[in-house]
Amino acid sequence: MADNDKRKHLVIFQPAGRRGYIDEGKTIKEASRELGVDLESVCGGQATCGKCKVRIEEGFFERYGISSGMEHLSPMEERERKYFAKHQETAGYRLSCVAHVYGDILIFVPEESRAGKQVVRKAATERAIKLKPAVRQYYAELYPATLDDPLADWERLQAELNRRFGLGNLTIDYRVLLSLQRVIRQGDWKVTVSVWMGREVIKIEPGLVEKAYGLAVDIGTTTVAGYLHDLTNGRLVATDSMMNPQVTYGEDVMSRITYAMVNEDGLKRMNQVIIKSLNQIAGRVALQAGIKHQDILDMVIVGNTCMHHIFLGINPEYLGRAPFPATIHHSLNIKVRELGLKISPGAYVHVLPVEAGFIGADNVGVLIAGEPYNQSEMILIIDIGTNSELVLGNRDKLISSSCASGPAFEGAHIKYGMRAAPGAIESVKIDPDSKEVCFKVIGKTDLRNDSELVKAKGICGSGIIDAIAQMFRAAILQEGGRFNTDVRIPRLRVTNEGPEFVIAWAVEASINQDITMCQADVRAVQLAKAAIYTGAKMMMRRLDVNRLDKILLAGAFGNYIDRESAMIIGLFPSCALENIYTVGNAAGDGACLALLNIDKRRKADKIARQVEYVELAVEPDFERQFTQALHFPL
Amino acid sequence: MADNDKRKHLVIFQPAGRRGYIDEGKTIKEASRELGVDLESVCGGQATCGKCKVRIEEGFFERYGISSGMEHLSPMEERERKYFAKHQETAGYRLSCVAHVYGDILIFVPEESRAGKQVVRKAATERAIKLKPAVRQYYAELYPATLDDPLADWERLQAELNRRFGLGNLTIDYRVLLSLQRVIRQGDWKVTVSVWMGREVIKIEPGLVEKAYGLAVDIGTTTVAGYLHDLTNGRLVATDSMMNPQVTYGEDVMSRITYAMVNEDGLKRMNQVIIKSLNQIAGRVALQAGIKHQDILDMVIVGNTCMHHIFLGINPEYLGRAPFPATIHHSLNIKVRELGLKISPGAYVHVLPVEAGFIGADNVGVLIAGEPYNQSEMILIIDIGTNSELVLGNRDKLISSSCASGPAFEGAHIKYGMRAAPGAIESVKIDPDSKEVCFKVIGKTDLRNDSELVKAKGICGSGIIDAIAQMFRAAILQEGGRFNTDVRIPRLRVTNEGPEFVIAWAVEASINQDITMCQADVRAVQLAKAAIYTGAKMMMRRLDVNRLDKILLAGAFGNYIDRESAMIIGLFPSCALENIYTVGNAAGDGACLALLNIDKRRKADKIARQVEYVELAVEPDFERQFTQALHFPL
Repeated sequence: MADNDKRKHLVIFQPAGRRGYIDEGKTIKEASRELGVDLESVCGGQATCGKCKVRIEEGFFERYGISSGMEHLSPMEERERKYFAKHQETAGYRLSCVAHVYGDILIFVPEESRAGKQVVRKAATERAIKLKPAVRQYYAELYPATLDDPLADWERLQAELNRRFGLGNLTIDYRVLLSLQRVIRQGDWKVTVSVWMGREVIKIEPGLVEKAYGLAVDIGTTTVAGYLHDLTNGRLVATDSMMNPQVTYGEDVMSRITYAMVNEDGLKRMNQVIIKSLNQIAGRVALQAGIKHQDILDMVIVGNTCMHHIFLGINPEYLGRAPFPATIHHSLNIKVRELGLKISPGAYVHVLPVEAGFIGADNVGVLIAGEPYNQSEMILIIDIGTNSELVLGNRDKLISSSCASGPAFEGAHIKYGMRAAPGAIESVKIDPDSKEVCFKVIGKTDLRNDSELVKAKGICGSGIIDAIAQMFRAAILQEGGRFNTDVRIPRLRVTNEGPEFVIAWAVEASINQDITMCQADVRAVQLAKAAIYTGAKMMMRRLDVNRLDKILLAGAFGNYIDRESAMIIGLFPSCALENIYTVGNAAGDGACLALLNIDKRRKADKIARQVEYVELAVEPDFERQFTQALHFPL
Repeated sequence: MADNDKRKHLVIFQPAGRRGYIDEGKTIKEASRELGVDLESVCGGQATCGKCKVRIEEGFFERYGISSGMEHLSPMEERERKYFAKHQETAGYRLSCVAHVYGDILIFVPEESRAGKQVVRKAATERAIKLKPAVRQYYAELYPATLDDPLADWERLQAELNRRFGLGNLTIDYRVLLSLQRVIRQGDWKVTVSVWMGREVIKIEPGLVEKAYGLAVDIGTTTVAGYLHDLTNGRLVATDSMMNPQVTYGEDVMSRITYAMVNEDGLKRMNQVIIKSLNQIAGRVALQAGIKHQDILDMVIVGNTCMHHIFLGINPEYLGRAPFPATIHHSLNIKVRELGLKISPGAYVHVLPVEAGFIGADNVGVLIAGEPYNQSEMILIIDIGTNSELVLGNRDKLISSSCASGPAFEGAHIKYGMRAAPGAIESVKIDPDSKEVCFKVIGKTDLRNDSELVKAKGICGSGIIDAIAQMFRAAILQEGGRFNTDVRIPRLRVTNEGPEFVIAWAVEASINQDITMCQADVRAVQLAKAAIYTGAKMMMRRLDVNRLDKILLAGAFGNYIDRESAMIIGLFPSCALENIYTVGNAAGDGACLALLNIDKRRKADKIARQVEYVELAVEPDFERQFTQALHFPL
């Protein structure tokens, strides 16, 4: 049945006020995507996270003489019910990924279900680096062709570039060739050529031009960050970041793999939105720098293996099942026009190599930024995420592994968990005696303005780690993770679902509920931290290492983690507190380095193959080690 | 004004019966193109050849009560009149490129104005050649990925290809990479890869496959010919040819350059039609060979510099004005998908190098086929066309030149001249005593069926040379080119426009007129042959050569020329008759050789830069030499 044969229904989302006609039978989640309303989604529409609750409003229908919006939806399903308190069900709540539209409907999106624009705090730090970019510009003045010297335009240019700059064996991009004769004459036989890797002309402009820019991009699962550099002096001239728009197809890597498998054009759709985002970033940084997007002559991409695959348009399916093989490890140089990227059309995008199915180009970026391969100290690098990546070693040997730490630190599978967005509790202190809690909430802007009171909406990764550590230190939690119900304070209470501890009272929250940590939340954090700890320990055993000289916490999350809290819950093997460093967005740093110095690209390819990937789950005593690591250390 | 705002008129072409509504103000020529009616056109719509005459019919209009179609056209222009005999003008003839449509009209296309499907006699001969194609296939069986060995698909394949076939440093086409994981699993970890130039995987197929084909194409100004080879054994498995569809935009190179300059999207249009033709040829030869067009894994193109530029989408404008520089000489390897060519999408098309603005890749093809650079004899290679290309030399030195011999040998600028199509007189004998004429006419098919009587419609290149030579030998023409009016026979008569000789009487012709050679025709041939002769002589002087050991006549026209007639009129410097060879479509041969052996490609690039291009028109005594060469040799 063609699209226009389908019945359509008016769907309105409040408070955003977005409205439009939606094909009958689509889910509310699909409708929200079509109408540009961002709903929370951790599981990617699998009805397993319960984050996309919406309330069906009736008022709209009364005005037209209809009593309840519920009649215009598919019936409530059993699998939804567990996500609703009884009062919610009667108040007309549904999971938007389950409920299908069969009539006009007005929907209210409660605050906790809104995927607000996330606070993006990725920022690649500037480092001293020898400038050796892939693209350089050369100016040439040619003698015009004459009857005595009718050499073709390209050979004439080639000869001059060889004579003056020693550029032998140059080739020319096919599209650039098409403009050659026009540009040479427009510049009155004076031109500036941009040469890639000393071997291919990727742009030609009339006259003398000194505009060569490069864009490094870190495609994170959640955040995409771009760094525009002036390739003539290495300076960072503009940055921009935005939420990875694939978030609406699932918040973590596994959900996106599932989305690609379940939906015929899922891969294509996710590829298209990320390409569009990169083009938006390119356009915005160009605007900031006062250049044209065509002045961007080079691009470097990092991202985890799944982001890497989707960016390239490669099906990530096999990354999601054992033995998790990637399609390609090596770095790639691809013409941007093949990918639909809108910078200078003759330019290449360099995609950093990936190490393994779970160790991506982002980790390679971390390696070339942190350079453990040049150090004598024993270093552990941890990039915490749903899958956490670990690298251990020094100049003698490097091994890497990944562990399924789960999305707890990203706020998923935690009752009041959320991402590091405005309203998230990001740090928690509990007085060991009074057990009183104080916490900090992320403000509306990056520069937190304390005068602006933001009410708590949930609790994000760093806050979760703090809360668990503080509860353990305050003896609210026992060593095994159980609540110590001997503590008699109002904050620690026992519900039908078991004990829970109130972090923020309803009056301090914007969601009109107490924000609590329950037993299941504690378990989720235990599983996550045990995975990382066990991974690190088994890697140390593999290298026969007893102690760590240094721990580097990479990634946006690592940047905000409280090192002491992390030590308290046993997130990683012991190390002197002063030797634990947060290195910020090292993946983005690595991308910038590879943009500015091609030796870094060669090093990345080499190191990506040298780092030995260790599959930990197959070790015989993994289970036993893991079970031990669930405890909090004394 | 948008297209659909324009007034449209019904235009009908007879006898083809094509009809359609045409925008007001378009020329009849434009209307014919839109309705798929092929009109002759030598000058490309410049009103300088007079070949596109049409007759405006009145019957159609009487039926609707309108007396004359002429009222529905723009008025007769002065520049048209000279192409019409008085009786034609009153009979309603117009030049289709001048007359604009302003009302419904019925048009009759007389036979001499129809561009019938030309007889294509290009055929690349098979030669012994060492097989060394650019694309080879390799079969590999891989171990499936496991948790202990989770190497990525590409690196796994790469390692196996290196181990088994010594293929190190392979890269993979981006589009092929996208299919890699699917194909490997589809083939149960057994695959066949096609590798280009030993360095890039351009195709991957599941299981064992032995299907590697290559297509060599000669893009002639008039004819496009394709030769499909099996790259596994070098065999020619199918051929196909068709008229170059650019013919409707002008019959010769200069007309097409003009068309590209005068029409904003002229280049784009001519590029699109030739790409479409190549795709048709690829489809047809694949059908003949029982393969899919995706089984064609390589392609080689030759053509003169203008065809070369238009094929690539490069503006040919500068080829048409002094100093006639090309945009590029070197050979090119371009992904077929960049050009819109539909063979295996990862494949490259190899475009042979061009020597100079007037010495194209076709001539390079001739060189690598004829190999004068390997001979000790002094060889002259002539490729006769509107621009004739000359190469002189041997293993010590080679020089090339071109001369504007004009289109006389292609039938243009000759009163009854035509291309080598059915109805063309292709050979002429005149009895020296009786002065009686006998001639041969090209039949409807390539295999001339003598039982099928085809009446003469005009006279083509080989017939023209025959006629002039025979008239000279029969003393009808004098040494200086004037008619000998002392000869008193009915065939030699004097009209208002001067003397003319009847080759075919009206009863022998399909156009109801005598087919004659007039004084202007003789002059046109004299100019053409003098240009070639002078060019050859001056090249001989440049190399200090007195005599030729061998002459090779290349090109479709050279194949049919009568060597003795050519000697009689003095088309080239003297050489023993038995040392004059016709080498057929050597350009096409060269393309096939380059397809089958990559050493030939390297040789072509080398030789194209070694052959010294000589501009003859700048030599001081060119004029004097040329004037002398106008005479017929005694």
